Amino acid sequence: MKVYLDNNATTAVAPEVLEAMLPYFSREYGNPSRPHSSGREARKAVEDAREAVAKALNASPTEILFTGSGTEADNLAVAGAAHGMAAKGRHVITSSIEHSAVLHTCRQLEKCGFSVTYLPVSRAGVVAPGDLKAALERAEAEGKRATIISIMHANNDTGAIQPIAELARIAHEHGAVLHTDAAQSAGRIPCDVQELGCDLLTISAHKFHGPKGVGAFYVRKGTRLEPILFGGSQEGGLRPGTEDVPGIVGLGRALPLACGRMESVGEQIRALRDRLHRGLCEAIDGVGLNGPSEGRLANTADLSFAGVEGESLLVNLDLAGVAVGAGSACTSGALEPSHVLMAMGLSRQAAQASIRFSLSAYTTGEEIEYVIRVLPPIIAKLRRQ
Amino acid sequence: MKVYLDNNATTAVAPEVLEAMLPYFSREYGNPSRPHSSGREARKAVEDAREAVAKALNASPTEILFTGSGTEADNLAVAGAAHGMAAKGRHVITSSIEHSAVLHTCRQLEKCGFSVTYLPVSRAGVVAPGDLKAALERAEAEGKRATIISIMHANNDTGAIQPIAELARIAHEHGAVLHTDAAQSAGRIPCDVQELGCDLLTISAHKFHGPKGVGAFYVRKGTRLEPILFGGSQEGGLRPGTEDVPGIVGLGRALPLACGRMESVGEQIRALRDRLHRGLCEAIDGVGLNGPSEGRLANTADLSFAGVEGESLLVNLDLAGVAVGAGSACTSGALEPSHVLMAMGLSRQAAQASIRFSLSAYTTGEEIEYVIRVLPPIIAKLRRQ
Repeated sequence: MKVYLDNNATTAVAPEVLEAMLPYFSREYGNPSRPHSSGREARKAVEDAREAVAKALNASPTEILFTGSGTEADNLAVAGAAHGMAAKGRHVITSSIEHSAVLHTCRQLEKCGFSVTYLPVSRAGVVAPGDLKAALERAEAEGKRATIISIMHANNDTGAIQPIAELARIAHEHGAVLHTDAAQSAGRIPCDVQELGCDLLTISAHKFHGPKGVGAFYVRKGTRLEPILFGGSQEGGLRPGTEDVPGIVGLGRALPLACGRMESVGEQIRALRDRLHRGLCEAIDGVGLNGPSEGRLANTADLSFAGVEGESLLVNLDLAGVAVGAGSACTSGALEPSHVLMAMGLSRQAAQASIRFSLSAYTTGEEIEYVIRVLPPIIAKLRRQ
Repeated sequence: MKVYLDNNATTAVAPEVLEAMLPYFSREYGNPSRPHSSGREARKAVEDAREAVAKALNASPTEILFTGSGTEADNLAVAGAAHGMAAKGRHVITSSIEHSAVLHTCRQLEKCGFSVTYLPVSRAGVVAPGDLKAALERAEAEGKRATIISIMHANNDTGAIQPIAELARIAHEHGAVLHTDAAQSAGRIPCDVQELGCDLLTISAHKFHGPKGVGAFYVRKGTRLEPILFGGSQEGGLRPGTEDVPGIVGLGRALPLACGRMESVGEQIRALRDRLHRGLCEAIDGVGLNGPSEGRLANTADLSFAGVEGESLLVNLDLAGVAVGAGSACTSGALEPSHVLMAMGLSRQAAQASIRFSLSAYTTGEEIEYVIRVLPPIIAKLRRQ
């Protein structure tokens, strides 16, 4: 049996999404920048997708841009805003549990003379609004002005949902803009940019059953951004390059599709995930949950198994046909403990004893029962070694 | 009848390419960075594509990187090399007929304190090696050290093939590296990086019947580059973000496919293009060819029609079902005259009286005869107005 429980890494393209994309490869293959009928058809497809994304996020179509990936969207949000507002101030605030696309962009900004505060998180992996407030006040006392604050909407490892609306309110009180990386939350929980109050929000199609290689970007009217790539005048001059029409069409289909079935699918996934968690706790001693039990994505359970190495667990589960997440692959191919779990205060050993189960709309009860059956003997075997 | 003669803007995905891509959307959808079987299958697909691209360019697989577009590849080549070698020197040399992805990256480098020389071109649109040599010597006399030289392989408007091997030799004599944007040449004429002698070469899949939204990048071993996007450690740390597996697979299939039939298709396309050019000259007075008659891509004919506006021509051809290229769309939607033709010394009026016919392997004799039939009365009508 093949069981894919690594949906926070990437998801299968939904059949409806692939079907929507197919005409744009070999039949309607025009370049949207060209002023002839073939170009206009492609342009219409892109603009229809933009409208669909805007509607799903409760934004205006002119506030949506497409990029080549979630990583590029995160880079454009954080570096583009930091450079775009550098005349006002050169301070950036983020958290220690962000995706590397945000964290490494912040490190690069430090090399360019920006200062960056990395907010801590609670043991459950949640940023405290009070910490943001304190960081802003501290920066101001030091004569620094924070212009851009980047806190993710839901964490990829633990599924912990961050208090974005409150963080945005605090950011705005101090004259800063708030970016949220919604790569893990879009299509899973509501991402209404008016309710969130964010100024910038990034999403990645392949996390919600859309294609890889395409991201999107909400930028609230009036937010000052500088481009990070240079070339043609596509996407309002902010993102050059011939638009990936099939990819954009796929994103434009995948997001409303996921949002439309968010509640029903969410309930189904939550029940399966909780059955998995309960089933494993019943059969195995020393199972811990990393992250909050409430205020968490319905599809995610990051579990630690005392005395077991996550990497061995991953390998043994793989042999049994089960794909899960654990740590992050470093250049040597070995698994580094998750920086998210480390930031939550777990010891290196505890972080390394953790694996992440992330479900999708396509996960079945049969698959979950299979995992509950195969995992306990693997744990027992590894604990004996 | 629908006739698509705008293949230098973008091409249809070849059926063989789409077929190769299809399994990677909904079935083999793993994330290549994940150390389980689903991830390993995706990794294998990416590495197989890398090997295919390397073979087609006569490079080593470790010298090939994938990006989200040709524009991103050009940005990474020019800005990545300029910043990567900034300790040696801060001078860049390019030509006035480059794609905006190179030209605007150079302008951005000027804002960052680099100096840039924009080489002129001949009336036929070709860079003279002597001009590069003179520019290098002038820079050295001024105490500047050029580190990166970027000259395209074949021009998108005229199809003019540039003397890359000679330019690379000169660059190397002066200790600089040479980048060539091969977006228009890859799959159309041989792009052997050993014969070209270039250090960096960029390609864009959608120009040779591959998918949009994916580019590739040759970087000769030992060439020092800095990344321009920040995040995960994919592509040797030079291009972060989850790999667009279907797109990369598509690129990896499209390039060898195009190269394999380069000679036969090239002959067929050249015959059709020359028939088009001859047929139009026989029926219309005052037809001029922009660009060299020899040393030009077999698929491209940029023609001027004295006393006619390219934009009106484009619109009228569009009404007749024929898609061609003309100028470049500016933000207002109006067409600006091609900066390439202007650099060749054409007057604004002459540049605006030009349209570009660019054929592909799928262009038929019937389509060419149709254009030869419908264009003369359009010209006659426009000239009467």
